[in-house]
Amino acid sequence: SSSEAFATTSPPKLLFRQLFEKESSTYTYLISDIAHPDKPAMLIDPVDTTVDRDIAVINELGLKLVYALNTHCHADHITGTGVLKTKVPDVRSIIARTSLAKADILLEKGDRIRVGNLYLEARPTPGHTSGCITYVTGDAPDQPQPMMAFTGDALLIRGCGRTDFQGGSSEKLYKSVHSQIFTLPNDTLVYPAHDYKGYTVSTVGEEKLFNPRLSQDKETFKNIMGNLNLPYPKLIDIAVPANLVCGLQGQDSKI
Amino acid sequence: SSSEAFATTSPPKLLFRQLFEKESSTYTYLISDIAHPDKPAMLIDPVDTTVDRDIAVINELGLKLVYALNTHCHADHITGTGVLKTKVPDVRSIIARTSLAKADILLEKGDRIRVGNLYLEARPTPGHTSGCITYVTGDAPDQPQPMMAFTGDALLIRGCGRTDFQGGSSEKLYKSVHSQIFTLPNDTLVYPAHDYKGYTVSTVGEEKLFNPRLSQDKETFKNIMGNLNLPYPKLIDIAVPANLVCGLQGQDSKI
Ligand SMILES: [Fe+2]
Ligand SMILES: [Fe+2]
Repeated sequence: SSSEAFATTSPPKLLFRQLFEKESSTYTYLISDIAHPDKPAMLIDPVDTTVDRDIAVINELGLKLVYALNTHCHADHITGTGVLKTKVPDVRSIIARTSLAKADILLEKGDRIRVGNLYLEARPTPGHTSGCITYVTGDAPDQPQPMMAFTGDALLIRGCGRTDFQGGSSEKLYKSVHSQIFTLPNDTLVYPAHDYKGYTVSTVGEEKLFNPRLSQDKETFKNIMGNLNLPYPKLIDIAVPANLVCGLQGQDSKI
Repeated sequence: SSSEAFATTSPPKLLFRQLFEKESSTYTYLISDIAHPDKPAMLIDPVDTTVDRDIAVINELGLKLVYALNTHCHADHITGTGVLKTKVPDVRSIIARTSLAKADILLEKGDRIRVGNLYLEARPTPGHTSGCITYVTGDAPDQPQPMMAFTGDALLIRGCGRTDFQGGSSEKLYKSVHSQIFTLPNDTLVYPAHDYKGYTVSTVGEEKLFNPRLSQDKETFKNIMGNLNLPYPKLIDIAVPANLVCGLQGQDSKI
């Protein structure tokens, strides 16, 4: 597999960057193993409008972008995955098979995405959409400590994604977060796909205690989610069809 | 001194949070030594409109806020320092003596601000204003590695603060950044007071290479800064007078 091309015996050294897109309040994450001579890198949840910024940082830092991942098929912005593929040779797009979106690599539960000697594990966390994945850094002594969880919209800081469209289900989301995220060590860093209040990071322990929705029992949670009365998302009819084809709708490009 | 009340013999354990205020694109930083039983904490560059969010996080994490620091007298937003003092007992405000602003503690070059067994050192970096300070974490084996520099508006990620008002001087700013910041280890993390493009952090090594202004020679830098043709800052006539009194203008409160 392509990931083996980047395997070495040296312990990994994480380069990590959190990047923010103001319009949709989206966080994009850059991860690289800079102990590896190729400095292979991946981007989680890139946004179409900030792809040039992301590529500039990647080039300045001398990284080689190999993967562009999405946590899910977004409804509030267009993924940068497709544009990245047109601008950076050999980048491969990744999303959950259950998202029903197109991508080069369709993930199943437990699949690992590797850059150098760092890896992320795919944990399905459906409920916001039916194809949501939380990416968790490796659970091994040479992997980042504390662990990091890229939770998409399944778990936000003191919040969570809505569950009223795209195959959403509050029942499923509750089960996903409690079985796949809240079971991680308490000091695991929580990096969500969005934040609207200026938080940049949280921990599993903090969210278990202080998340106003997911710290509740399941029935209370389902009640809260059933009574949010949110407006129809502004961009959903543009973003979802675009994101199903990596943000490259109406283009002839091979995705 | 009050800092001695928090001294213990256990090695410090850093809790660090970066918080964002969208309107003015300001970063506020929360730093605590959570190895200390009191979990004493400080906030760097709090914003008036996000004080309640900051207090909520501090309370949830069980921290005791003891200091509210400013890197300089801001022209683009009102500091949260004064409001914090009215809402949290015993918080002491801190700024450079050269800022000419009021505060409980007025810093001189080399002064240290301590929470538990963590400390920041005050490095004067005038040039954006005449009273700018860069706060640098301790240079000792038990202090955070890599080091962290809170650069205010002296050094931004791939940029810097303007130098055309508040005692600004491109000559001084160039000297400040090159003598006080670029002399730090290359892996020192750079945390600025603002970012407008969604960057959250950089390093000294990166800015030495890629800062489009400060990587230039001094004459080129002065030319760039002299030809920015920036508009008069929207909030300066409100923000500066307010910030000179900790954001508590027109109030009878003791600052
Ligand atoms: Fe979403
Ligand atoms: Fe400023």
